[in-house]
Amino acid sequence: MSAQPNLVVVGSIGIDTIETPHEKQPDILGGSASYACAASSLFSRTGMVGVVGTDFPDLHRQVWGAMDIDLSGVQTVEGETFKWHGVYEANMDNRSTISTELGVFADFSPVLPGEYRKAPYLFLGNIAPELQLHVLEQMDDPKFVLVDTMDLWINIAREALEKVVAKVTMLTLNESEARLLTGEQTLLAAAKHLLKMGPEYVLIKKGESGSMLFTHKNIFMLHAYPLESFKDPTGAGDAFAGGFIGKLAEFDELSPVAIRQAMAYGSVVASFGVEEFSLGRLTGIEREDIENRYAEFVEMSRIS
Amino acid sequence: MSAQPNLVVVGSIGIDTIETPHEKQPDILGGSASYACAASSLFSRTGMVGVVGTDFPDLHRQVWGAMDIDLSGVQTVEGETFKWHGVYEANMDNRSTISTELGVFADFSPVLPGEYRKAPYLFLGNIAPELQLHVLEQMDDPKFVLVDTMDLWINIAREALEKVVAKVTMLTLNESEARLLTGEQTLLAAAKHLLKMGPEYVLIKKGESGSMLFTHKNIFMLHAYPLESFKDPTGAGDAFAGGFIGKLAEFDELSPVAIRQAMAYGSVVASFGVEEFSLGRLTGIEREDIENRYAEFVEMSRIS
Repeated sequence: MSAQPNLVVVGSIGIDTIETPHEKQPDILGGSASYACAASSLFSRTGMVGVVGTDFPDLHRQVWGAMDIDLSGVQTVEGETFKWHGVYEANMDNRSTISTELGVFADFSPVLPGEYRKAPYLFLGNIAPELQLHVLEQMDDPKFVLVDTMDLWINIAREALEKVVAKVTMLTLNESEARLLTGEQTLLAAAKHLLKMGPEYVLIKKGESGSMLFTHKNIFMLHAYPLESFKDPTGAGDAFAGGFIGKLAEFDELSPVAIRQAMAYGSVVASFGVEEFSLGRLTGIEREDIENRYAEFVEMSRIS
Repeated sequence: MSAQPNLVVVGSIGIDTIETPHEKQPDILGGSASYACAASSLFSRTGMVGVVGTDFPDLHRQVWGAMDIDLSGVQTVEGETFKWHGVYEANMDNRSTISTELGVFADFSPVLPGEYRKAPYLFLGNIAPELQLHVLEQMDDPKFVLVDTMDLWINIAREALEKVVAKVTMLTLNESEARLLTGEQTLLAAAKHLLKMGPEYVLIKKGESGSMLFTHKNIFMLHAYPLESFKDPTGAGDAFAGGFIGKLAEFDELSPVAIRQAMAYGSVVASFGVEEFSLGRLTGIEREDIENRYAEFVEMSRIS
């Protein structure tokens, strides 16, 4: 018997078909919950909340199981699993969506198993803000809640999103989303605006340029761990967020230093993640690999 | 009598007309040498090498003089000073050129005053690589040579550019230029390629996302100092490079720590520069302003 999760992650679970300039990978395991749980489970016992269809391959489930992710929060519903087909442009900076089939994800209503409700750490991955609120209401009294969102929800569900943001500890989003949500031009102005909406921390993701953390008192800036090559950037933001909150739950301490170090661990984990498609690299990381890259990363970021 | 310069900066001197979404500033002092010297002179006695026409306003010259920049390397030639008219888009990320009039800059042939030739530090700002080579040949034996370039020279003067790059200590360029010059996709791959061309250091500028320094042995990553608002990003890269080499010349030490700290000072100076048009803010900085912002910046970049 494994211990009960001290971190709960809710998000999408999908079967992806991904094309890069170099290769095409059909029907691979994807989704924000899948990437985030794979990353967080490197540090903390994680419970996954999501939905799959009856077509979901048992092999994918075994990948999570091998990482010791608790799957009692994953519902299986009659129908098709969420599917996404994306193509990356030559520079791998931009991608376009060929097709999205929501399948059972269209009617997803997350229900938390009893033993998840007492978890001190919660990551509300990128799903509809109404569903994020529904999850939050089922939790007893989490110590730290991280929420992610995307442009779609800012455009079609701003009111519900604002309700979520007001209730969480940390909001994470990428730079264009921060500008869209606030109408501000600089990230500092956007972050000040977002902090007024309620969260104690605002974490703006800048892709391969790293991330910036804002509180009412100070700012922390982190680069991304630099790679000479990578195969698939899909899920990097989720792996970063998952690695961050997984490490934070392991520290189980909300000091500024713990939060900064957890961000650096998140970046390190995300850098491994993009080296292969799907969870290919995340499933094979040894703790030593992480610590070695983390030590290098700290050295690369040291001014003096 | 002022001391002879220990840093020589060569580059363009221009009269700019700049439009942002908020205002239009006609006929202001610009050019890579102007921004770089204003920044470097905050730390080190700097000699400027460039050319202006007989139309060049005396008031602009007085701005440099007030910063104690040595102007004996500035030639005045019959004709018009280089003029550039640019417009920034709504997000201030991109700009387009309305007009460029080379004027006397078209036939610029830099000649170094005798007392410049012994300077230990040299910044070859963004001008034609043939002219950069010509300057380099006039120097006795500089300890540290930084060269900047741009996409134009990569496209039309690659061979001369490669000759310059092989002879300098540090190459700086922005990320798209690094990709253009090497054909590599990631910055790490591009930097490895560029290091093979000869320089000991490659410094890739990433605009508001900071910069990355590569040597054969290690990597250093620096963010840009975050601003809530700014007025004009023109010359930020030149002010960064100028502030960097000015501070390095002040340290007069090429240790990894001195180089990292000098980069951070360069970023701080660039952050002041963009707060006003032209040299408006750079001329008014006190040493204390720089030190305060530097201390904040170090704190914002500290992982643990």
